[in-house]
Amino acid sequence: MKKTDKRSDCPISRTLDIFGDKWTLLILRDIAFKGYNFYNEFLNSEEGIATNVLSSRLKMLEEKEIVICRMVESRKYDRLKKRKEYKLTKLGIGLVPVLLEMLVWGHHFDDTTKVIPEFFERFTNDRESLIQEVTTALENDLNKNFC
Amino acid sequence: MKKTDKRSDCPISRTLDIFGDKWTLLILRDIAFKGYNFYNEFLNSEEGIATNVLSSRLKMLEEKEIVICRMVESRKYDRLKKRKEYKLTKLGIGLVPVLLEMLVWGHHFDDTTKVIPEFFERFTNDRESLIQEVTTALENDLNKNFC
Repeated sequence: MKKTDKRSDCPISRTLDIFGDKWTLLILRDIAFKGYNFYNEFLNSEEGIATNVLSSRLKMLEEKEIVICRMVESRKYDRLKKRKEYKLTKLGIGLVPVLLEMLVWGHHFDDTTKVIPEFFERFTNDRESLIQEVTTALENDLNKNFC
Repeated sequence: MKKTDKRSDCPISRTLDIFGDKWTLLILRDIAFKGYNFYNEFLNSEEGIATNVLSSRLKMLEEKEIVICRMVESRKYDRLKKRKEYKLTKLGIGLVPVLLEMLVWGHHFDDTTKVIPEFFERFTNDRESLIQEVTTALENDLNKNFC
């Protein structure tokens, strides 16, 4: 049985078929909230994801059309460098509310975790407009670069 | 390193320290939405959780004060039966929004998953009041039985 195979007809279980591990949603967090788009950026995130885990998760996310990637070129010391740039698809952007609810719960559970007070307060008081704003920004970024 | 040890100061990562697996949130789903409260009920959920996984997750959830349990007695064929009854604490009830957002995303991702249309539509159109209703019902149940 593949790790992402369907275990039941429950949509919560279906989400966990894909995201039921400690790492995959952190990659989406990095793209959605930190503006990271490259393998090395994800690799250097402070939780310390292992290379094999990162590679397999990116592959799975691409196969499931939750992220999309393209090759970009840059020059460094006169050498041409090709890298994959990752963005969230619309399906991936649809996970922003899950991530934000996890952010709120995580901070309630452990108040030594760090949040931006204005962001946290706004989510508590004005959830809908914050989600709309984050979602629109990610969609614009996607359209600008990948369409 | 224990599986629930803190990997970083990010509250999303913190939530995944606790819930980053395919099973733990299903136990909370069973309590919150199916009204299951006993070990055998969780064990018989259709995803087929293994006994050792279920036992270790319930123990962890109790230690972290996300669920609470008490011993209840019942009679069957004249034999006294003692069982642990599990409920969500206030901290556990705080995960209802995470579960509901996962429900919505899972159904968008895979529309062969089953949802109650009225429930799904209400969540889409009237999220706040639905969360309030579910939360209040769970809190009342907790107060009635455990306080």
